[in-house]
Amino acid sequence: MNPSAHSPSILALSGGIGGAKLALGLTHAMPPEKLMIIGNIGDDFVHLGLNISPDLDTLMYTLSGKSDSDKGWGLANESWTVMQALEKMGGETWFKLGDMDLATHLERTHRLRAGVSLTEITSYFCQQFGIEARIIPVSNDRVHTIVETPDGDMTFQDYFVRERCKPTVSGLSFQGADKALPNPELIETLQNQSLQAVVICPSNPFLSIDPILAVRGVREELRACSAPVIAVSPIVGGNAVKGPTKKNLRELGHPVSATAIANYYRDFIDGFIVDIQDEATAQEIQKLDIAVKVSNTMMTDLTTKIELAQTVLNFSSCCGKCTKRFKEKDSPCGP
Amino acid sequence: MNPSAHSPSILALSGGIGGAKLALGLTHAMPPEKLMIIGNIGDDFVHLGLNISPDLDTLMYTLSGKSDSDKGWGLANESWTVMQALEKMGGETWFKLGDMDLATHLERTHRLRAGVSLTEITSYFCQQFGIEARIIPVSNDRVHTIVETPDGDMTFQDYFVRERCKPTVSGLSFQGADKALPNPELIETLQNQSLQAVVICPSNPFLSIDPILAVRGVREELRACSAPVIAVSPIVGGNAVKGPTKKNLRELGHPVSATAIANYYRDFIDGFIVDIQDEATAQEIQKLDIAVKVSNTMMTDLTTKIELAQTVLNFSSCCGKCTKRFKEKDSPCGP
Repeated sequence: MNPSAHSPSILALSGGIGGAKLALGLTHAMPPEKLMIIGNIGDDFVHLGLNISPDLDTLMYTLSGKSDSDKGWGLANESWTVMQALEKMGGETWFKLGDMDLATHLERTHRLRAGVSLTEITSYFCQQFGIEARIIPVSNDRVHTIVETPDGDMTFQDYFVRERCKPTVSGLSFQGADKALPNPELIETLQNQSLQAVVICPSNPFLSIDPILAVRGVREELRACSAPVIAVSPIVGGNAVKGPTKKNLRELGHPVSATAIANYYRDFIDGFIVDIQDEATAQEIQKLDIAVKVSNTMMTDLTTKIELAQTVLNFSSCCGKCTKRFKEKDSPCGP
Repeated sequence: MNPSAHSPSILALSGGIGGAKLALGLTHAMPPEKLMIIGNIGDDFVHLGLNISPDLDTLMYTLSGKSDSDKGWGLANESWTVMQALEKMGGETWFKLGDMDLATHLERTHRLRAGVSLTEITSYFCQQFGIEARIIPVSNDRVHTIVETPDGDMTFQDYFVRERCKPTVSGLSFQGADKALPNPELIETLQNQSLQAVVICPSNPFLSIDPILAVRGVREELRACSAPVIAVSPIVGGNAVKGPTKKNLRELGHPVSATAIANYYRDFIDGFIVDIQDEATAQEIQKLDIAVKVSNTMMTDLTTKIELAQTVLNFSSCCGKCTKRFKEKDSPCGP
């Protein structure tokens, strides 16, 4: 087989729930084996002795159609026998691990200890789950998102799950990111001339995308890559669809708007997709030298996920409002 | 509270299933808080990243009334969701871990990693399970039973569970036992003049009792202890009630008989309880300078467990067929 036959045409950067929704749409809107998804590992942690990778798992569960679509995380038809037994024993149950989900963590932990890389393990899991797209962690090394608050630093899961995002975020750091080696497949893909687009999924910029970009060299390679980089706004109608994005924007001194997100990404994106509710921001964003596409971005069912994915793919191949950078890249739109 | 108020009057050495049955009987035949049970840790192993202590768990589950009395191990009304999910992922499922059982291993692993000793963890678990007897591991250090076979060495669980005891056992060794520190509570109890008896439960002598005795100093303290040491035969009618005891006796060059067990223990026991089916062996055993009691030893229900426990307790306080050693110990039977 020609090795380039499997070189990805689309690279997506994703956190958990919101990102996984678009990733699922993409697998239906293009040949899934040509899609590579880079998962955030800043949320990864060891809990009860188990290596847990929440965002990689959300991607796996979503793309395999096994996720709990009501909750957005975890597996559908999950049972909680282990957690209930653990609770009776006075164990820690603030981080909910379903019975079937636990099998994933047990097997991951087992394989990591045997010296298998997180990339290989994730690929193995994807194969078991029948996923054709390639999901890989941004690095095989450990990166830990540290949430800085007025009361001191917190681990990501303490902030996100235990404290339900209540503490004020005064800053973020990504422990280990400066020493972590980026996934070689990611770098290779970003440098590959056959890559057609990079998609920044509608994930939390600070908690999901930044820890990916923080890994040594990733942001630089993203800036240098020849394919257009398209971000989908996680802000819709001035609100976050889910999670603490709105609160984080405020606390970190940004306006709560699609424009603020585009501005935050301006050093590496070429195009930005805003929701129809935020059409008014299009002009502002274009002034940042970013191509804009207005579209429905609310992914309420599989159809809307696929439609948004199709919009992203069309926009990346021909933006219709080409920026200088698009033109330089010989966009089919022409100069 | 007077600290001696809680010093054990009966010390039992136990492996898993058979031993736990007698231990349960003892908790009903005496004040349970005066019973100390030393659990074998030679079967302990790390599996899927979890620290598993099968014999301690069987003791805990049995004494709390939560064990699966049909299987003899594990918890009653157990579910297997995690194992089923693990199987689908191609994980290792040869060692069956029930969902509720998994909570025990998760919590043990978590606490061990936090630096808590196995003794403290086991005590905590016993408290959670409402167990009044004291169950402690023979050591807080690691001891691993290694099964020697003509095809090479095997770990205990590989031999016992994965290979279902099929390989021929040519010898046994207890990795770490020579360096392991015996549980200070065990040594203190053996040296305590108020101890009334030591009971060697009807467990496999080679796989369950030997790894306890192999821990540095335990056999010597047992020999030196002032209380009578009474063993209950795991051989009934020339057969093992459960497990590979019969096969092990043969393979290791012993006759398959209650006498062979008594002889194997002769350096430290004072009394031996044989089953009524083995009454004919009583005389042979007495010739070994061991007092013998003939009794029903088949523990088919709670009543027979309690009856055997009562027999053990009566025999230890007055053997009726006192050996020299009993007499030296000022047995109430007199010289």
